[in-house]
Amino acid sequence: MNAETVWLDIARVRDDAPLVHNITNYVVMNTTANALLAIGASPVMAHALDEVEDMVNIASSLVVNIGTLSVPWIEAMFRAAEAARKRGLRVVFDPVGAGATKFRTDTARQFLEDFQPTVVRGNPSEILSLAGENVLTKGVDSRHEPEAALKTALALSDKFGSVVTISGAIDRIVSDGRIITVANGHPLMPRVTGLGCTASALTGAFIAVDPSPFEGAAAAMAVMGIAGEMAAEKAGGPGTFQVEFIDALYRMSDIDITKRLIAGSESRG
Amino acid sequence: MNAETVWLDIARVRDDAPLVHNITNYVVMNTTANALLAIGASPVMAHALDEVEDMVNIASSLVVNIGTLSVPWIEAMFRAAEAARKRGLRVVFDPVGAGATKFRTDTARQFLEDFQPTVVRGNPSEILSLAGENVLTKGVDSRHEPEAALKTALALSDKFGSVVTISGAIDRIVSDGRIITVANGHPLMPRVTGLGCTASALTGAFIAVDPSPFEGAAAAMAVMGIAGEMAAEKAGGPGTFQVEFIDALYRMSDIDITKRLIAGSESRG
Amino acid sequence: MNAETVWLDIARVRDDAPLVHNITNYVVMNTTANALLAIGASPVMAHALDEVEDMVNIASSLVVNIGTLSVPWIEAMFRAAEAARKRGLRVVFDPVGAGATKFRTDTARQFLEDFQPTVVRGNPSEILSLAGENVLTKGVDSRHEPEAALKTALALSDKFGSVVTISGAIDRIVSDGRIITVANGHPLMPRVTGLGCTASALTGAFIAVDPSPFEGAAAAMAVMGIAGEMAAEKAGGPGTFQVEFIDALYRMSDIDITKRLIAGSESRG
Repeated sequence: MNAETVWLDIARVRDDAPLVHNITNYVVMNTTANALLAIGASPVMAHALDEVEDMVNIASSLVVNIGTLSVPWIEAMFRAAEAARKRGLRVVFDPVGAGATKFRTDTARQFLEDFQPTVVRGNPSEILSLAGENVLTKGVDSRHEPEAALKTALALSDKFGSVVTISGAIDRIVSDGRIITVANGHPLMPRVTGLGCTASALTGAFIAVDPSPFEGAAAAMAVMGIAGEMAAEKAGGPGTFQVEFIDALYRMSDIDITKRLIAGSESRG
Repeated sequence: MNAETVWLDIARVRDDAPLVHNITNYVVMNTTANALLAIGASPVMAHALDEVEDMVNIASSLVVNIGTLSVPWIEAMFRAAEAARKRGLRVVFDPVGAGATKFRTDTARQFLEDFQPTVVRGNPSEILSLAGENVLTKGVDSRHEPEAALKTALALSDKFGSVVTISGAIDRIVSDGRIITVANGHPLMPRVTGLGCTASALTGAFIAVDPSPFEGAAAAMAVMGIAGEMAAEKAGGPGTFQVEFIDALYRMSDIDITKRLIAGSESRG
Repeated sequence: MNAETVWLDIARVRDDAPLVHNITNYVVMNTTANALLAIGASPVMAHALDEVEDMVNIASSLVVNIGTLSVPWIEAMFRAAEAARKRGLRVVFDPVGAGATKFRTDTARQFLEDFQPTVVRGNPSEILSLAGENVLTKGVDSRHEPEAALKTALALSDKFGSVVTISGAIDRIVSDGRIITVANGHPLMPRVTGLGCTASALTGAFIAVDPSPFEGAAAAMAVMGIAGEMAAEKAGGPGTFQVEFIDALYRMSDIDITKRLIAGSESRG
């Protein structure tokens, strides 16, 4: 991944306006919809059993996020993912808070086993919990450094064939022994609720347009980090940051990416 | 409708602070509540079967929005609308995403048949889908030009006795063969989630105070468009636009309306 | 309470980052999560019966808010409160809209009877309705002056052993015959949805770190009022106010508190 491939993905999203079907949590529905609109995608939120299949059938990708999980929503998530599998539609899974409660951890693991999502994105605690590690999650925040989760991400990727994105001060996107590292971002980002969920939603937009979900997932994290840097330059705190972040997604140019992108890649056979 | 009648409606909303009962979608609850507060109304969100009738009985109007529909919520929407009918309370119906899934289309049509809401507001795709047209809806966004839906709106208005608002770059408000056209607004508006829902919520406030629901619905669209223009002058993108839009609703004066309103009317017997 | 004790509580929140478990309404989930993050706490929203006990068991406090109440959520609220009682975990209860419908009033009274929450925070109408007063509530807004509710708050505090916070232009925090008065704030605050809910959420953070829930609840209201004043100096209306308010929570220093705090105390045996 380099600045040109990131920019190409943004151009594709803006041209195609992919319809990203989100089954996500109450906390972030508004902000992730706005982030998707700002980058040029078309968001839809729909969770009823009666319509998730129909919505999946017109969607360009599906994003499943367990942030405010409950039993009826699990049923809808699984039904939507089943419909996505039938269509060969790409799926992003965000295991928000996995590790914090057995309910979330079990649901997240089951989803992985049943559907092998195209991309799994989480913080280090969440990624560790997916592999059965005995982790200490503090609610939905992570107490683990990204490095600790890298090995688990590689193993998950091998087992399920998924791209695994670990987000943090440094993001790592893992697939089939390959690792892309993105070092963009800003310390204000963890002070805004739902930016992890936003990363998952944008991943949904980018894997809808990039032939490679690995490259698309990495481009989404680059865009997140760069938008964060652009927003922080104008913000006086996490409140103004949040609206400037949306503006940055909307205004981001090839020059912003070329000037700011800090990314690398490696392989671990 | 002219600048004076729009201003008169704003003054009434600010004086009366009508209680607008919203049964609406998760994505926009916060933003529509803030828009209602900013214009001077008093919002309440309540969806439990156990209380919707009580809430309707103290409300000044009811707004029903199917943006994140599910079966339990449909039951509450229909019960609330039934209570509104008994009281003669005015009702706004927003068929978000009708045409995208059979579930939404069927629910929306049933609501119209059962309750003949005072105002129906949607984008062209949604309005077309209500009439049984075979339309192509892309999630909750519209692929149709406003003109294409005008004929359908006139027919719906005749059939159900409802005011029908088609929103878009040019808004058309239709009732009994009459058409008010509002040409205010800004291209950033479709890049912010839930501004259509906000238009429906404000319509709820304006028809609570204007003796004519046709004039009230048109005034609401004028206020939306003018606030959009005011916000765009201060915004750097859709994030800052969203907060400036709320400020504009709060600060809007008679001079803003006189200076900006672009509206016309016609009749089609 | 004085500027030093308020500042000490902020410093504790920022150092400890208490995990505040919220079972709250759809309208404010995003904004209260952001307020908690901005002040330095760690928010989690979780409402499933399957996990509320697990979440309570890792939380530093529990906040229960009935703003968009429904039967399944009541069950989760009561189960979470029961788990909190077993652990001796402090609980904030926000009876949003009590008095507006029988459903809310009954639920709120039952919660008080069953759990004697550490802190109850509401507007004057809500507090009055908890005591069986025949009050006139307008949706979720209050028509009553704080003075009218003070007597009720003292009685509720005596009966349940709870701290009772009445918020308004002047906040009163009541416990065991003692009253702390906070006169900070700004007229824009009631024009932003969910700032009462935010006050309850911040109360959850402050009583998680202050040994005295009475002092902690009062400090939370002082921080709310001071942040409101700081935000209003930068805001052009309730939209920009909302983001500036979050920034103010994030940036608030000991000097801001010393310079602005207007608080007093009295006893009524």
